Amino acid sequence: MPELRQDSLSGRWVIVAENRAARPDQFATKNGSGVEVCPFCPGHEDLTPKATAVYPIASSNKPWQVRVVPNKYPAVELSATGDRGEAAVGVHEVIIESSAHVASLSDVSDEEARLTFVAYRDRLHTLRQDLRLAYGLVFKNARADGGATLEHTHSQLIALSTIPADIQFELAKAGEHRMLHGSCAFCDLIDGEVDGARYVAATDSFVVFCPFGSRFPYEMWVLPRKHRESFEETPDSELAELAELMQNLIRRLEAKLESPAYNYWIRNAPFRLSSHDDYHWRIELTPRMTRLAGFELGTGCFINSVSPEQAAARLRSVTA
Amino acid sequence: MPELRQDSLSGRWVIVAENRAARPDQFATKNGSGVEVCPFCPGHEDLTPKATAVYPIASSNKPWQVRVVPNKYPAVELSATGDRGEAAVGVHEVIIESSAHVASLSDVSDEEARLTFVAYRDRLHTLRQDLRLAYGLVFKNARADGGATLEHTHSQLIALSTIPADIQFELAKAGEHRMLHGSCAFCDLIDGEVDGARYVAATDSFVVFCPFGSRFPYEMWVLPRKHRESFEETPDSELAELAELMQNLIRRLEAKLESPAYNYWIRNAPFRLSSHDDYHWRIELTPRMTRLAGFELGTGCFINSVSPEQAAARLRSVTA
Repeated sequence: MPELRQDSLSGRWVIVAENRAARPDQFATKNGSGVEVCPFCPGHEDLTPKATAVYPIASSNKPWQVRVVPNKYPAVELSATGDRGEAAVGVHEVIIESSAHVASLSDVSDEEARLTFVAYRDRLHTLRQDLRLAYGLVFKNARADGGATLEHTHSQLIALSTIPADIQFELAKAGEHRMLHGSCAFCDLIDGEVDGARYVAATDSFVVFCPFGSRFPYEMWVLPRKHRESFEETPDSELAELAELMQNLIRRLEAKLESPAYNYWIRNAPFRLSSHDDYHWRIELTPRMTRLAGFELGTGCFINSVSPEQAAARLRSVTA
Repeated sequence: MPELRQDSLSGRWVIVAENRAARPDQFATKNGSGVEVCPFCPGHEDLTPKATAVYPIASSNKPWQVRVVPNKYPAVELSATGDRGEAAVGVHEVIIESSAHVASLSDVSDEEARLTFVAYRDRLHTLRQDLRLAYGLVFKNARADGGATLEHTHSQLIALSTIPADIQFELAKAGEHRMLHGSCAFCDLIDGEVDGARYVAATDSFVVFCPFGSRFPYEMWVLPRKHRESFEETPDSELAELAELMQNLIRRLEAKLESPAYNYWIRNAPFRLSSHDDYHWRIELTPRMTRLAGFELGTGCFINSVSPEQAAARLRSVTA
């Protein structure tokens, strides 16, 4: 059973989930233990737990375009009980973004990309009704250096019974900002970055820039222009726009950096905000060109060898 | 010029060091840009900046055994000036652990290992005299997945003008512990772990265990039994004991896990402690079997698929 443990001196949280050691790794080559049959391809649905949600469209002759399944090797479980630590209570799901065996969100059809973002919203919306759950993180690990163990393009959703400390810190900071300035810290951030040196792209509803404190070369943040606390508030029309934008940004990275590994995650509000907190959701997207190593692990600081101003200039000029 | 930037909402610090993008990468194979001549091998001393310290021994016919040089691509510089962010003021050095072209501290001679730890202490001791510097991190990135860009076994030292937030947090927590219990949090931790389920090894002066909140499979902490705030207080006899112990622990990892990439770093007290802070230095050592990916980046929490109790049991039984 997965356990949640806190290091008493650093305040850091760790989920100890021993069942995950049994995961097959498609990218493992050292001992030939790679996965030969893709459990995410059509026809192999019996290799995953029973689907939580399936997104077909009427005109398609494929059985499904996007499929959500419980993670076979969950990091958290609703039935978890603590042994030495606290129980790691939660839900861990996989969002299979296409029926095609491709390696990146940029390779799926427009409709599959749109349905992927619909699935994110639907699942977050459903999970927030469960009062045992406090926070839901949607994230994507693409390619081996991005932490993927299966190639077939997919995202994950981990819903937790506690709000991660990083999110709590940011909520408090945004609450302070509203107290002091009477405005949303993120709306103000958007105003400062639109058309500035770190600006990358924009659509009717979204703005993209490389953040001032970028941890990684070519890190980008995508924010909705309208003040919206939770990703779940995004209307249908904007989800399609967002899916298209994300595909475009990933294609820019792939054109500029020779198909890098990448991650993105939705930095979302907790399922229930307290009255003194404030938030405005965003997506953080970054290629993974370098390793987090001794310096980062030893200090919590990052070293980034491409300034966000340089990165943004290069990303603006890429056509993809 | 390297810059220090803080993300206003997360409090996270980033060093933007564009000069580091020019680093050659010996492990890069994609475009064949690997390094052909090793700048750390004897005879190539002109490929590094002039040595800061050199450790020969009289009986050796080699020119040196351990050599400390300024990093050719520094993340921080004493002469840094801020542009958009603050100046990233500091010193960045490389400790070459052997004149032999080997990939791990476990491959160097006993004497080279001892001199490596002597070099760590000497350089920290010298740098703490500089009042512009507040904190010094010694760290090692071994093999490509550990973040190394050169194979020849080496460590690094980055001295900073500020105390990293993670260290400040831990100092405050240890200060609180002393206020509440009248004792050192780390001395109490050692008492709780010696001979327990997470115990790995011990010598006359050091204790090794897998921490309760291990972030990584097989993560180990090495602490001096005596209460010592700073690594620089370690006497000569204990440095030799520590070097031998570290080689032994790395050999256990290498025997158990097929020569994994690994990192270690010295979690040290700041150069000047304030009166309400408390500390007790340690080394954190971990193999790098898995990637930090979307979940870790999105929440600051870790997922570890090997419990520290399991890891310790396996590490105790390895002979190396």
